[in-house]
Amino acid sequence: MAVRADLNIALDGYASTTGQTAENPMGDDWFRLVAAYSGTRTFREHVLGDSSGAGTTGVDDAYAREYFEGVGAEVMGAGMFGLHLNADDPQWHGWWGDEPPFHVPVFVLTHAPRPSIEMAGGTTFHFRSASPEGVLAEAISAAGDTDVRIGGGVRTVRSFLAAGLVDRLHVGITPILLGRGHKLWDDLRGLEAGYTVSSETAESGITHVTFQR
Amino acid sequence: MAVRADLNIALDGYASTTGQTAENPMGDDWFRLVAAYSGTRTFREHVLGDSSGAGTTGVDDAYAREYFEGVGAEVMGAGMFGLHLNADDPQWHGWWGDEPPFHVPVFVLTHAPRPSIEMAGGTTFHFRSASPEGVLAEAISAAGDTDVRIGGGVRTVRSFLAAGLVDRLHVGITPILLGRGHKLWDDLRGLEAGYTVSSETAESGITHVTFQR
Repeated sequence: MAVRADLNIALDGYASTTGQTAENPMGDDWFRLVAAYSGTRTFREHVLGDSSGAGTTGVDDAYAREYFEGVGAEVMGAGMFGLHLNADDPQWHGWWGDEPPFHVPVFVLTHAPRPSIEMAGGTTFHFRSASPEGVLAEAISAAGDTDVRIGGGVRTVRSFLAAGLVDRLHVGITPILLGRGHKLWDDLRGLEAGYTVSSETAESGITHVTFQR
Repeated sequence: MAVRADLNIALDGYASTTGQTAENPMGDDWFRLVAAYSGTRTFREHVLGDSSGAGTTGVDDAYAREYFEGVGAEVMGAGMFGLHLNADDPQWHGWWGDEPPFHVPVFVLTHAPRPSIEMAGGTTFHFRSASPEGVLAEAISAAGDTDVRIGGGVRTVRSFLAAGLVDRLHVGITPILLGRGHKLWDDLRGLEAGYTVSSETAESGITHVTFQR
């Protein structure tokens, strides 16, 4: 069992974008940030439901496959689930349609918990007001022998990193400068201690950096 | 003729280190930041005067060789030259001994110009109170057909990048998080527009990113 996190970040460390609205929930720069990832065969299959075999199959796709393998539970922040933009909608069940691409219990951190929502395909959203350690204990229990993924957003991942709770961090670095939003690396001086760090540049120009405990 | 800049930065964008003193002018983290670069054969030969052939000869060394090739003039900030820590010493002539590894005219930006200093080996330090555009015009004239290097420090490089004056930026990214000092990427949103960006990971784990106009 390992606790894992994966993020796409820009060269200047920004991992979320600005200007999110309910109609454009990912914000303006999102597609530039994730262009290589969302072009992989694995993303097309797992997130878009495209089983045609279209999409890239190189280094980016290898990391995308790892992302989807062996996860038994996920933790995410309220912002990633969309609670901030949809606080008034008691029926809100995320951005991912009726069959979300998680297929495991997903623990959403929020100061205003609501009843759990069971979706098609094995995803159940649970809402918890808890510390990183507290929600992680519950997610680890739910995952059994498999991994727990800290899904995002960037502030949630950073809080788990700061608390020393992440066994493997993978970032795909897109060589663009966003200059605004939320940064992954703030206040994490010396994070590399206790990890083995490896780097690999994909055909797309994305550099994949992995911190492995 | 091209205007070039090269920097070693940490994964979180910090390119200078804290705690500099006259006795420890590079600060505590400097050697971790530049370990791969300072281990190259080219660095050992050009900066340390070690002609034994010792040092690495892989990807990091290829970038180090490019750094030293084809430069006809250099621009640097007062901090890199050491003026801030040695303002009281009218004889101060930098950190690099009697034969500095530049071998070209070096224009030091300072609000308190002093007389030029001619060193052994072709280096002459000139002190200018000027805008980036103003000092660059003089450096380009001095360089003739060869390149001008914006040597550093990080704030000086960033000011030339922000002014759109750099034709090629190369950064060697060391996978450590420094969390303090001066960052390269602040306020450079969209820098990639107008450049072709390429990335390459060295045997050492350093990722070399090049912005080429």
